[in-house]
Amino acid sequence: MNWSKVEIEGLERFFRANLINSVTGFKSLCLLGSRDAAGRENLAVFTQVIHVGADPPMLGILFRPVVDGMHSLANIRATGWFTLNHVLEGEAQDAHWTSARWEVSEFQVTGFEPEYLPQIPAPFVKGSRVRMALQPVREILIEENGTTFLLAAIHYLEVPDHALKDDGFADLVSAGSLAGTGLDGYASLAGLNRFTYARPKEKPRPI
Amino acid sequence: MNWSKVEIEGLERFFRANLINSVTGFKSLCLLGSRDAAGRENLAVFTQVIHVGADPPMLGILFRPVVDGMHSLANIRATGWFTLNHVLEGEAQDAHWTSARWEVSEFQVTGFEPEYLPQIPAPFVKGSRVRMALQPVREILIEENGTTFLLAAIHYLEVPDHALKDDGFADLVSAGSLAGTGLDGYASLAGLNRFTYARPKEKPRPI
Repeated sequence: MNWSKVEIEGLERFFRANLINSVTGFKSLCLLGSRDAAGRENLAVFTQVIHVGADPPMLGILFRPVVDGMHSLANIRATGWFTLNHVLEGEAQDAHWTSARWEVSEFQVTGFEPEYLPQIPAPFVKGSRVRMALQPVREILIEENGTTFLLAAIHYLEVPDHALKDDGFADLVSAGSLAGTGLDGYASLAGLNRFTYARPKEKPRPI
Repeated sequence: MNWSKVEIEGLERFFRANLINSVTGFKSLCLLGSRDAAGRENLAVFTQVIHVGADPPMLGILFRPVVDGMHSLANIRATGWFTLNHVLEGEAQDAHWTSARWEVSEFQVTGFEPEYLPQIPAPFVKGSRVRMALQPVREILIEENGTTFLLAAIHYLEVPDHALKDDGFADLVSAGSLAGTGLDGYASLAGLNRFTYARPKEKPRPI
């Protein structure tokens, strides 16, 4: 099946949202933990997370236009801290449920438990294996559709010992992390190949 | 294993690059096809691709600071067109090889063949199943590290019939797309769960 730009724009709204959200490829699948100025906890699933740079250690997250009932970006603005916690196999259903418009904290109603580490005021997800604490660096408004691309610096990072390779690579397949796809897809991983640094003279070899 | 910000900054450069590139989670895995003003073809693997919006259909790609031998962004600036083509199982080794600093076109030396569609001057990858043609909308310079976040509009899109669901969801697991991880990881998918739209009253059900 194929579509031109005009045909895409003519698609029914939900069909188009499902389609366009799917075709960019597999995505990160993280729970974002935050608190508001009064200390109320929030937890929300995010998939639009990308690596921006390793020096300084920085990533970028896309936030949809803020409407009532969406608290993550407001909490980050208010407190200057948040956490990202990889979603594990078996947690997909609860992770998806955090995307409902809750009036209470998602920690009270889903299966996730908050956990606090010294010096970090935002809640982590207890039991998540790859997790990090971040502080905002800069917000970039995407005027074309009202979304916000937030640059954030990594201030603390955890990776399970068994998933950490000698060269710093974190094996997310053995860590049990899931991949996101589309608006509501949670994919599990089968296996992983790595290849040597690519040079023209020789085809990269499996590591 | 865990690291504070200061500890991350003190890590050996390649260890830190592997680590920080891994922990953001699974990523899109696409081959970007382009041509320069003289018509010379280029193909390069990209993993930092995110959905920005479905209306208008738009995505974002992060480009590293341009140095000699990196042609994709320069070609996009010169011609106003590029393609993204999902990498399939069995193509990971060749996809990784496109990241070498080639002086000739990657289409000449790797196993990928160019294919052209009417009205679109950039080359697609023949045989790729999920693929699209895009035009740049706006470049956003990330001053913090010299990377460029390019907003691009989808002008043409292809998804295999068998992977397209009634509601517009493209099943990338059945399409055979791979997920990227870290600087050199290519992960295959095992399975997929989808869940109903999340509302507080009822836990989302599997679709």
